[in-house]
Amino acid sequence: MSAGANEAHGNGESGAAEAARRARRASRQLAMLSDQQRNDALLLAAERLEESEGQIVAANAEDLRAAEPLVRAGTMSQAMLARLHISEKSVADMAERVRSVARLPDPLRRKLNQTELDSGLVLTKETCPLGVVAVVFESRPDVVPQVASLALKSGNAILLKGGREAAHTNEALIGVWIETLRESGMSADAAQLLHSRADVAELLELDRDVDLLIPRGGRDFVEIISRQSRIPVLGHGEGICHVYVHSAADFEKAERIVLDAKLDYPAACNAAETLLVDAAIAPRFLPRMVENLRAAGVEVRGCERTRAIVPSGVDAATERDWATEYGDLILSVKVVDGLDHAIAHIHQYGSGHTEAIITGDTGAAERFLNEVDAAGVYHNASTRFADGYRYGLGAEVGISNGKLHARGPMGLEGLTTYKYKLRGSGQTVGDYKSGRKFTHRPL
Amino acid sequence: MSAGANEAHGNGESGAAEAARRARRASRQLAMLSDQQRNDALLLAAERLEESEGQIVAANAEDLRAAEPLVRAGTMSQAMLARLHISEKSVADMAERVRSVARLPDPLRRKLNQTELDSGLVLTKETCPLGVVAVVFESRPDVVPQVASLALKSGNAILLKGGREAAHTNEALIGVWIETLRESGMSADAAQLLHSRADVAELLELDRDVDLLIPRGGRDFVEIISRQSRIPVLGHGEGICHVYVHSAADFEKAERIVLDAKLDYPAACNAAETLLVDAAIAPRFLPRMVENLRAAGVEVRGCERTRAIVPSGVDAATERDWATEYGDLILSVKVVDGLDHAIAHIHQYGSGHTEAIITGDTGAAERFLNEVDAAGVYHNASTRFADGYRYGLGAEVGISNGKLHARGPMGLEGLTTYKYKLRGSGQTVGDYKSGRKFTHRPL
Repeated sequence: MSAGANEAHGNGESGAAEAARRARRASRQLAMLSDQQRNDALLLAAERLEESEGQIVAANAEDLRAAEPLVRAGTMSQAMLARLHISEKSVADMAERVRSVARLPDPLRRKLNQTELDSGLVLTKETCPLGVVAVVFESRPDVVPQVASLALKSGNAILLKGGREAAHTNEALIGVWIETLRESGMSADAAQLLHSRADVAELLELDRDVDLLIPRGGRDFVEIISRQSRIPVLGHGEGICHVYVHSAADFEKAERIVLDAKLDYPAACNAAETLLVDAAIAPRFLPRMVENLRAAGVEVRGCERTRAIVPSGVDAATERDWATEYGDLILSVKVVDGLDHAIAHIHQYGSGHTEAIITGDTGAAERFLNEVDAAGVYHNASTRFADGYRYGLGAEVGISNGKLHARGPMGLEGLTTYKYKLRGSGQTVGDYKSGRKFTHRPL
Repeated sequence: MSAGANEAHGNGESGAAEAARRARRASRQLAMLSDQQRNDALLLAAERLEESEGQIVAANAEDLRAAEPLVRAGTMSQAMLARLHISEKSVADMAERVRSVARLPDPLRRKLNQTELDSGLVLTKETCPLGVVAVVFESRPDVVPQVASLALKSGNAILLKGGREAAHTNEALIGVWIETLRESGMSADAAQLLHSRADVAELLELDRDVDLLIPRGGRDFVEIISRQSRIPVLGHGEGICHVYVHSAADFEKAERIVLDAKLDYPAACNAAETLLVDAAIAPRFLPRMVENLRAAGVEVRGCERTRAIVPSGVDAATERDWATEYGDLILSVKVVDGLDHAIAHIHQYGSGHTEAIITGDTGAAERFLNEVDAAGVYHNASTRFADGYRYGLGAEVGISNGKLHARGPMGLEGLTTYKYKLRGSGQTVGDYKSGRKFTHRPL
């Protein structure tokens, strides 16, 4: 088995189909491990990551060297280069995150429900791993231990395909991980790295051996993967998040939240793209808000009413702006006529990711939280909180914009499913057609 | 709004896109209704169904008349004709089922989880409706009130497309439903019937206005819908269910369960297609089992070892038999070498629907329930129990063979998702980058 693993890991001759078949086999073993066994392996992995710090940083240096000409040629951004960089501190952080995943409660064999269907016939709905999960991601190599640890904790085998620019770092990280699996007596096939774009194309067809595919990347990337995949896909196409400043908002709070939601990390999917402001307060709120945004380097694009209030320095927003995820230091601003208008705008243009209302009026806030159809609905907090770590999920394998299976940041629970266990004593359905009644008693 | 509803309902001129847009609007209202309001409407619908019995049965008589020549020509089976037939008793049963859905606990606004992220910053994971659900089904008109009641109880708008053979009956049923919605002060767009195949083709593209598509029908039908749809699909392609008679089985129980699993309703997806028998007991168990199966009209196809034990009346099973859902009075039989062999066979050929072990050995049973990767794993009970009503879910919108979102019979829970509500007091993510720590305290 380790020879097979080396093949896929080492020289990439073996394709995605063979890797997935081996992952499926490994997943059967993983599903049977105790929480203790999975946690012990995670703690060992954290230790081995720390011990391999030098080797990981050296591999990363190779990737950074290869990136230099790309940055000079302008085909790689400084931000992407920054995300690629791994320091001694980063390795220590990775190890700590792996330990924090080990500390989370066991997501497996949880009884979700138990019903006595009849005397001596008991139905139990119980969590179990999905099986094999594939994650396709770009640049950030810290995804490797993060996703691998969530997968191991939840008893899933994992197939990873990272960006070419991080190839050496990813190899070093997965190498450490596979060594740990072996040392823990587990199949090395439980975590495998795929190598080529051809592997990804092949992967999309493998719905028999891969249960879930998570693309982490830009909108177009996710869209293409979703369209082509026969495997169920969870990911997010876009994040058009709104901050709505209600007429009863505390201006100081509103300003701080808007600035955080736009500036903390503009490229993130949970950054705000549009600011909605109630007409009643817009003349008092907008001038200073726009001034502060512009001072922070944000380009502001406003509706007609916004531009009437702040005539200079605000470009005209077009219909297209409301539907755009800038991912950059740009913010569109619209004056709305109260809560219903704000909600209607959000439902028309939002992507169902994360939406915030800023108000001192609890009734308005509760209506917003109930009526807005999005994975995250916030009162008086920045949209940037939409993140697995901040939510207390330990980490995330991705963020789902869909409504099925998992919504918002996906941690361990998104990597599990359930099965119905029925324990009987010889019952047939025919018995219940000849008069016998179900008890359907919750246990 | 009611004029619009009539348009789609009455003459079919309005297409699926317009129907879905109206359903989306209706779904926003439905999501805000209280449990009481939804239950009151359900109880009223049950009453109106009973009152409309004559009208429903008359509409059904029209469908039955139209079906007669098809049955004579052999293009419609007697079984299909039987499923189409609605009696006074059937209408009473429908009404009773709608009432039983009203009695179920409210699936909405359930707190799945609550975490204090920090003092004054509380995250709540709470159930909410999916929004708009479309169900495409064949023949059985009782699907209409069953699915419509589950949708209403869970706050979802519904688009239904039934088979042409049941057109009059479906129209009569949805007519009663829509009248009830109006009488209850709800939008008539909350339940709409689509009319043509063109509507279905159009529907598959409407991923913005339809959240979930459930095809109920044959394997090829589900496969085609899944391949073409941009909307997430839950359904089941096939049901290749096994009954495994372990060496420590009680023969009498095993026989009764095998006969029930094969004979109770051979066309159902939860009927058994393959019988696995441990080699240790096969010489004693198989002769009588095969005799009983054959006496009941079942064609038996066996592996070499089976045919060596029961030389006459058993055809040779080929590789293809193990992978076939007969949906008919045919059963394939294989002699296996114990639990591991049985599980390996199930994982190779099973469809992850429902798998049963018959044994008096609890250890073997527990291993089977834990290791077999299927939506239903049964000990000493017939695979035919895999059904929403029998599971105590009240009814089912379908059965899912997938592992994501819903697995096995799907009731109300499969029609809900959740949202994360975050209630803060002005928090920004920036605060937590300058030293502030999350508490992540479960509430």
